[in-house]
Amino acid sequence: MSGENGGTPPAQVYHMGLDTLRVDRRDLHRKIRAKVEAAVKKAVPEEERGLILLKGGEGKPYYDTDNEPLFRQESYFFHLFGVVESGWYGAMDLGEGTTILFIPRLPESHAVWMGALKEPEEYIAQLGVDEVYYVDELVEWLQWIAPKCLHVMEGTNSDSGNAYAPLTFDGIDNFVLEKTTLFPILCESRVIKLPEEQAIMRYANVIGSQAHVAMMHACQPGMMEYQLEATYLHHCEFHGGCRTEAYTCIAASGPNGAVLHYGHEGAPNDRLISDGDMVLADMGCKYYGYDSDITTTFPVNGKFTPDQRLVYESVLDASESVKAAMKPGVSWLDMHKLAERRILEGLKKGGLLTGDVDEMLDAFVGGVFMPHGLGHFLGLDTHDVGGYLGRPPRVDEPGRKSLRTCCVLEEGMVITVEPGCYFNPFLITGGLKNPAIKGFFVKDRIKHFEGFGGVRIEDNVIVTSDGIDCMTNVPRTVEDVEKVMAGGSWP
Amino acid sequence: MSGENGGTPPAQVYHMGLDTLRVDRRDLHRKIRAKVEAAVKKAVPEEERGLILLKGGEGKPYYDTDNEPLFRQESYFFHLFGVVESGWYGAMDLGEGTTILFIPRLPESHAVWMGALKEPEEYIAQLGVDEVYYVDELVEWLQWIAPKCLHVMEGTNSDSGNAYAPLTFDGIDNFVLEKTTLFPILCESRVIKLPEEQAIMRYANVIGSQAHVAMMHACQPGMMEYQLEATYLHHCEFHGGCRTEAYTCIAASGPNGAVLHYGHEGAPNDRLISDGDMVLADMGCKYYGYDSDITTTFPVNGKFTPDQRLVYESVLDASESVKAAMKPGVSWLDMHKLAERRILEGLKKGGLLTGDVDEMLDAFVGGVFMPHGLGHFLGLDTHDVGGYLGRPPRVDEPGRKSLRTCCVLEEGMVITVEPGCYFNPFLITGGLKNPAIKGFFVKDRIKHFEGFGGVRIEDNVIVTSDGIDCMTNVPRTVEDVEKVMAGGSWP
Repeated sequence: MSGENGGTPPAQVYHMGLDTLRVDRRDLHRKIRAKVEAAVKKAVPEEERGLILLKGGEGKPYYDTDNEPLFRQESYFFHLFGVVESGWYGAMDLGEGTTILFIPRLPESHAVWMGALKEPEEYIAQLGVDEVYYVDELVEWLQWIAPKCLHVMEGTNSDSGNAYAPLTFDGIDNFVLEKTTLFPILCESRVIKLPEEQAIMRYANVIGSQAHVAMMHACQPGMMEYQLEATYLHHCEFHGGCRTEAYTCIAASGPNGAVLHYGHEGAPNDRLISDGDMVLADMGCKYYGYDSDITTTFPVNGKFTPDQRLVYESVLDASESVKAAMKPGVSWLDMHKLAERRILEGLKKGGLLTGDVDEMLDAFVGGVFMPHGLGHFLGLDTHDVGGYLGRPPRVDEPGRKSLRTCCVLEEGMVITVEPGCYFNPFLITGGLKNPAIKGFFVKDRIKHFEGFGGVRIEDNVIVTSDGIDCMTNVPRTVEDVEKVMAGGSWP
Repeated sequence: MSGENGGTPPAQVYHMGLDTLRVDRRDLHRKIRAKVEAAVKKAVPEEERGLILLKGGEGKPYYDTDNEPLFRQESYFFHLFGVVESGWYGAMDLGEGTTILFIPRLPESHAVWMGALKEPEEYIAQLGVDEVYYVDELVEWLQWIAPKCLHVMEGTNSDSGNAYAPLTFDGIDNFVLEKTTLFPILCESRVIKLPEEQAIMRYANVIGSQAHVAMMHACQPGMMEYQLEATYLHHCEFHGGCRTEAYTCIAASGPNGAVLHYGHEGAPNDRLISDGDMVLADMGCKYYGYDSDITTTFPVNGKFTPDQRLVYESVLDASESVKAAMKPGVSWLDMHKLAERRILEGLKKGGLLTGDVDEMLDAFVGGVFMPHGLGHFLGLDTHDVGGYLGRPPRVDEPGRKSLRTCCVLEEGMVITVEPGCYFNPFLITGGLKNPAIKGFFVKDRIKHFEGFGGVRIEDNVIVTSDGIDCMTNVPRTVEDVEKVMAGGSWP
């Protein structure tokens, strides 16, 4: 352990070298565990307290092969323990106030294929836990300390509808499982970010923002969409030490901008970018597990057409209005409606819509142009957990039902602000047929935007005591975007 | 369908745009299916023939989240049908000689999130199959055509020891499953590559080779290992349209060169590259499913030290000797031993070993320095299938037991040639204690190489009628490596 000056950082510091961020992981996860421990103690009377036990993620190869994709740790486990490796268990003894990790016992040949085996002591120094044993000692250890119960996770992710995988180990039937306490507490612990977590997300935003600018500088008509993706990813890893993307890059040009999750295996960013197109680039990076999630939209030839400016500035107005209104106590559903209002006002001003904007809102015209939610919690997962747990329920209204949370904002939340306006053929056609909606449409003007694609402007913000702190720093005004597309430096 | 001139290629052509390779997927997979059909007809008498039925891969999100990694198709399914999307079934009717695909029926909202739904007819044009139905029609369709049996896959991957996932669908119990014919035939079909498959692998080698050169040009002391990875990946995607790596990049500097599968989550290419280090870079890219798998080893300051040259040229000698000897009928185990011999001769010449090289070979001294196999089949999987199926069995000898095949070479095989020489502390210490081995060690000289890391030189070759065709084109001699490290162009 050679200290901070030049050489290898101390074991408890996560650092990807050079100018990348140093994270005191020992300190961070101790603070998180202290917060969780306090919450569990508040929820469970002393005589009913046992042991918190979680299983970490397990690496899986592709199909029947021996080729494993780079392992990504399960987020709750990472949140509590900061472990990056596969196949661990982690426990918190609420009586003793200690943290205990269980690592897989690897064969000696591991040294040849994967590197020298670490001793348990090295993990104690690195992660700041009290004891480290082997997974094959878990049951014996549990029998020895004989906890009143095991507080385990049980619950469903409100973004995916998928259940948290139940804890398993041989011999689990000999223990009492208590399944109600832990899930909401860990969820909530992830919703409100500690300052130390915010600092990591700020860094992921610095790197992600720079990478978006690098992509804007590189962009030219005649390129392929995936070349923008390559430019972005290169910047994040080369200059930021962000080895993995947060989610599959969306590099959507022209009409593809209207496909919200473009970029998947069936639409692999493989369109030729043409003069006159806009590109909608939704890309995020990951540092020490924490995500950024940024969208820029820009004209590939560097100059907005009047049509592009009209749609872009409607969305920008929505973004700015929402960010100006956000603070603790404000309803996210209201913010979504505010964004809808600004976009509808913009489209009305541009002659695409006619009539009263309040009536449009009541008729859900907003959902035709912005079918997704205004934003979502962000953290170790891109769509971070806790959106509806103990919070106002989902509303069943077009567009708004896609909101991943209808929360009332609280200090310490990290959330994306990502209004968008799209000309999706499926939704526009639906709107033109919908008796409640079609009356607001100026059909010729709407038709004129066929194939336009879409605009999304996405920032990552922290809710502060009296407003927000926007971590994303990319050119946003038409003027700034055009300046950067012409090669201008940013910031 | 606008034809080849400038615009979108015809539906049956896979093309990532610009100068990337065009693959006539309709033609390719028809040829593969014809080969498989003929083999099955040869193996199964007419009265026992039924329907070949496979299930494609299914995309899975990370844990309980809604975030799915970019989908990678299951290789047998891709081999037969060329389908890139998730959740399909594919059938070959041996009586009618027809191919039928079953696609998931997606909700209309798919158009908003993932893009316009394709009609079955579009897949018929793209993939050259006869009929396309929906997965929810599979059982009804099967009942209607009432096959004598379903020829399904059952078998174990000899690289991983993992079983092929059994076919499942609701109602499968109503059909007779025939499980012995298909697996070895599909395996074998993947071992011997068609000229059209070889052309794709050639392309993946062109791009991968260029990317290795780009990395050598970029490399300097003071960089982080992952910056080499970033440089490599950027080249493959930006210039080659290879959006995914074949496997996690290994960018191992200094002592890390002795860790064969360095680069995983616990050792994420995060070492500072120092003056005097060598880098061992094992990186491969994927185009239309097919892999390249190339390793270069080079001194980061551009000049080999005498020690580095000694080890490097021993390995290069092994590589050249093996490639000169390879042709149909040659035993791969013999080639492995030839590589061991050349490396041991080199180390003896360098004063690290003493005694008779034949005796060293008999005592398995080779396995101390080259603990992995000389090479493996390469194709849709990096460790491609069929290494031991219907071929000479694995030998239980140090080093050699890691061989992924002991095949006798056949025309059309694609295999890696990757001799290596490592100073792995675990193995060297073991060798120094082993009574059968330690007598050959010149202890002081061996000790001098502590922390040296290792050298691997890996090419991808096609076995031809009278030799091999080496697809990899990177600088290999000491002189060429030094020239390229000094900025020289290649080839």
